[in-house]
Amino acid sequence: MVWKIGLIGFGNVGQGFIRILAKKKEELKRRYGFEYKVLAVSDPIKGNAYSDDGLDLNQILRLLDEKGNIRNYPGYKKFDSIQLAREMDIDIVVEATPTNLETGEPGLSHIRNALESGRHVATSNKGPIALAYRELVSIAEKKNVILRFEGTVMSGTPALNLARESLAGCDILDVEGILNGTTNFILTEMEKGSSYEKALKKAQEMGYAETDPTADVEGWDAAVKTVIIANTLMNGNITIKDVEREGITKIALEDVKNALKNNMRIKLLACIHRENNKVKVSVKPTEIPLDHPLANVMDVLNAITFTTDNLGKVTLIGPGAGRIETGQAILTDVLYIHRILSG
Amino acid sequence: MVWKIGLIGFGNVGQGFIRILAKKKEELKRRYGFEYKVLAVSDPIKGNAYSDDGLDLNQILRLLDEKGNIRNYPGYKKFDSIQLAREMDIDIVVEATPTNLETGEPGLSHIRNALESGRHVATSNKGPIALAYRELVSIAEKKNVILRFEGTVMSGTPALNLARESLAGCDILDVEGILNGTTNFILTEMEKGSSYEKALKKAQEMGYAETDPTADVEGWDAAVKTVIIANTLMNGNITIKDVEREGITKIALEDVKNALKNNMRIKLLACIHRENNKVKVSVKPTEIPLDHPLANVMDVLNAITFTTDNLGKVTLIGPGAGRIETGQAILTDVLYIHRILSG
Repeated sequence: MVWKIGLIGFGNVGQGFIRILAKKKEELKRRYGFEYKVLAVSDPIKGNAYSDDGLDLNQILRLLDEKGNIRNYPGYKKFDSIQLAREMDIDIVVEATPTNLETGEPGLSHIRNALESGRHVATSNKGPIALAYRELVSIAEKKNVILRFEGTVMSGTPALNLARESLAGCDILDVEGILNGTTNFILTEMEKGSSYEKALKKAQEMGYAETDPTADVEGWDAAVKTVIIANTLMNGNITIKDVEREGITKIALEDVKNALKNNMRIKLLACIHRENNKVKVSVKPTEIPLDHPLANVMDVLNAITFTTDNLGKVTLIGPGAGRIETGQAILTDVLYIHRILSG
Repeated sequence: MVWKIGLIGFGNVGQGFIRILAKKKEELKRRYGFEYKVLAVSDPIKGNAYSDDGLDLNQILRLLDEKGNIRNYPGYKKFDSIQLAREMDIDIVVEATPTNLETGEPGLSHIRNALESGRHVATSNKGPIALAYRELVSIAEKKNVILRFEGTVMSGTPALNLARESLAGCDILDVEGILNGTTNFILTEMEKGSSYEKALKKAQEMGYAETDPTADVEGWDAAVKTVIIANTLMNGNITIKDVEREGITKIALEDVKNALKNNMRIKLLACIHRENNKVKVSVKPTEIPLDHPLANVMDVLNAITFTTDNLGKVTLIGPGAGRIETGQAILTDVLYIHRILSG
């Protein structure tokens, strides 16, 4: 079969996904037997495009590079993102709009509508998964469709799929991770001698930190990822309010240096563990010994250690953000859907 | 469906697999919808057992603990391992006999017979995969059955499945790994001040090294794993003779200390990379900087770094051997077959 794909959200992640799809069309067919048509792209700023025969992805990308939007793609058709999710003849809806941690919108409505109308979903949007995972999974089960969300944690570094498929059969007892690249970069720079302020400024110059860096430096971004891990991998049922959260803004250069003197390193450590059948979650600056598996994860890298019953500790290290990296997360989810359903 | 399983080889790996199956029967049903009956176990030393209704795994394990063999399991039936692979009413043949790197036997015949007669195979046996991967895959494709072999590299640490499924869509450009726990343990002990001879003796006392340690310390074990990685993940077509191989027997305490003085560490590094469309492979003691992702992988741990087009470097660290650990590898393969075929 040729998979009919609709994309909602044509920012960094959506563009990364489309770039990989365009570049690897032949390879995906040869290696995985995966064939696709992207019927529709919808973005509130970049515009919409639609084609019954499948969009010409290279033309879409060219338009975007040249004009900054895709409004002039031939064959105009009026539709909105909810119509894409709900009414179009699409098999897989890719939801890649920006994360909203309070309402989950507009992603939550997109995903809900897509699942309810019997479409598979691959998303990188943290909001809906952090806020409404159980509801969304139950819709997916009722409609017999697949919901995947690898890109919500560590971008394309396959932390979730590793745990769900490659470690199938293991119980995950405990998780530790470095789940935010920006703060890990800042702490690495401080180890080289920068003050917190100087390190933050460099992170902003490099495009790692936003102008308002609160979400990263106060630990919110890592916290939402711990919620996703707890609820999707460890059968938890928590919200971001349950996370014991502390950011890195109070870490002084002195603290970083003192830790090193004791062969320790400060990391913004995310911890998820079971205690008396409840899942307990925290994100806070933590001194870990230099021979700890996460101690040498530097710069913007992310990492996660799963403590399991059958294997003990298994650690995965890789990128935690990026356009192509998160596009890859969407691709691996789409290929999962293909693999499962083409048997 | 209830999967009918037959096990050939009831040594460490087979026992580890059966122990997990017995312990997790209810959990596997609840979490994955996976139900099984083990119809037959065959081992040249421990004996055979068979039951149409499925063996009582706890009874089998008790017999083994008490008598050292399973010959007194009720309901004797005469059969050999080839009959198990070829003639019995079995869906999945688990092949867990010891590795033979010269002929691949008896595993190769077991796997060939099982695939040819339309049965899925999960194996931890390195010989057949290193020697005959292309032949076996082509039989599996012709017969439309699945061949899985996670346990051949890094035991249950899912290096192969990570690359094949979780990183699907990525090109693997280059692989570096620490693929032998015994030599990594010896090098770690030498860093603590032991001579090579003393470290080897300790490895033997701990059960990590064999009485004849050649396969480990001369790099043969790591070399065969590089062959499997090259041929199964990077479309190579090499044999163990193509591996540039050097063991650790010539490493002196001095060398280890001198490396450390320069902020380097000696590791028995396995490298697989593409050069002019050919896959080049080596296993040799290599000085790597202390901030290299593999430099802090100590003791018997294994690790592998995949350099990919979409994600850059992704590193996986975990155990490389062990009864339960390799039993887990078989389980994850069996659950993969279940996941794909129950859609």
